[in-house]
Amino acid sequence: MFKEGLKIVLSGPSGSGKGTIVRKLIMHEEFKLSVSATTRAPREGEIDGVHYFFKTKNEFRSMIEQNELLEYAVFCDNYYGTPKSFIEEYVKNGKDVILEIEVQGAKQIKAIYPDALFIFVMPPSLSELENRLVGRNTETEEVIRKRLERAKEELSLYKEYDYVVINDTIEEAAKAIELIVYAEKLRSHRFKETIETMLNNKGGF
Amino acid sequence: MFKEGLKIVLSGPSGSGKGTIVRKLIMHEEFKLSVSATTRAPREGEIDGVHYFFKTKNEFRSMIEQNELLEYAVFCDNYYGTPKSFIEEYVKNGKDVILEIEVQGAKQIKAIYPDALFIFVMPPSLSELENRLVGRNTETEEVIRKRLERAKEELSLYKEYDYVVINDTIEEAAKAIELIVYAEKLRSHRFKETIETMLNNKGGF
Repeated sequence: MFKEGLKIVLSGPSGSGKGTIVRKLIMHEEFKLSVSATTRAPREGEIDGVHYFFKTKNEFRSMIEQNELLEYAVFCDNYYGTPKSFIEEYVKNGKDVILEIEVQGAKQIKAIYPDALFIFVMPPSLSELENRLVGRNTETEEVIRKRLERAKEELSLYKEYDYVVINDTIEEAAKAIELIVYAEKLRSHRFKETIETMLNNKGGF
Repeated sequence: MFKEGLKIVLSGPSGSGKGTIVRKLIMHEEFKLSVSATTRAPREGEIDGVHYFFKTKNEFRSMIEQNELLEYAVFCDNYYGTPKSFIEEYVKNGKDVILEIEVQGAKQIKAIYPDALFIFVMPPSLSELENRLVGRNTETEEVIRKRLERAKEELSLYKEYDYVVINDTIEEAAKAIELIVYAEKLRSHRFKETIETMLNNKGGF
């Protein structure tokens, strides 16, 4: 009955845990992750084409020029962007495509996909956020300080999102997003075809 | 964290099963039913003050004059209305107050409570709707015919609602409404206080 999937934009400060939530969500077949392109170095265990398309700055600039990206942003001296290619195709095929996007990039997407679902993932507290950033062991103290400052700025932008999910535990946060998606599929505009068919076929459908 | 409850307007054609769904929902403590006033005769098992406040036409007209009703409508020669009294009080106390309202009345409520959640319950098919109306054994054939015609008109008004729930089984429909309410409580505007507290208290909350 519901042919088309949803475009789900998931943002949140660095350290909010949105990446882990996404990995949990895509264990369900209905969800498909939009793979971003980035110029930042891979972290341990990250695979090119799965977690990101890792690009040089020259390669990334070329993608911008060729208009291959839905949006892009510069963050801590690195480019991050969303290749347009498969998003719309998967949505048409009924998949719910998750776009894990920096807050900065989400605004650009809202202009292009006003019908997308905008979900903001936030940490339960700023001190918990700091703990998570320190625990990663991938960033210098200076980078962590910058990210915390950035996180505060980003938190104030929650209003631009449709929903807020507090990441207390990954399981609960992922479940909350699943339920939001479930509810969104019951939006009245998605019943146009069903109800019109019902009213046009005498005796029901 | 979420102090205020939701106002939930539940409508649907006669025979859509919205009444049974409501009785299922209010088994949960979080939900509170707004009891309507009506001039129609009680059906078997219906209790005054629980299912409806049963009123004479004169009593009902007096309530209208005293401005005690949020809305009222005439349906099949009977008055139906919603006493304002406890709705807002319960919402303030964190309860999700369900308003079981005829489609005609829902429009009036939207003007007064634009922040209410509007959910449209529909039968899986028109033939199933007819079966349910006949099965009730409380109406004449003429009334059933009128209600079916009315149902078709009402179905075309689904667009005025936020969500549509198809009542295949009571359990599934009630569950769908619970999940809609759960998701609505994650709407970003409800996080204003949480996030502002977080940003104003250095070191988190």
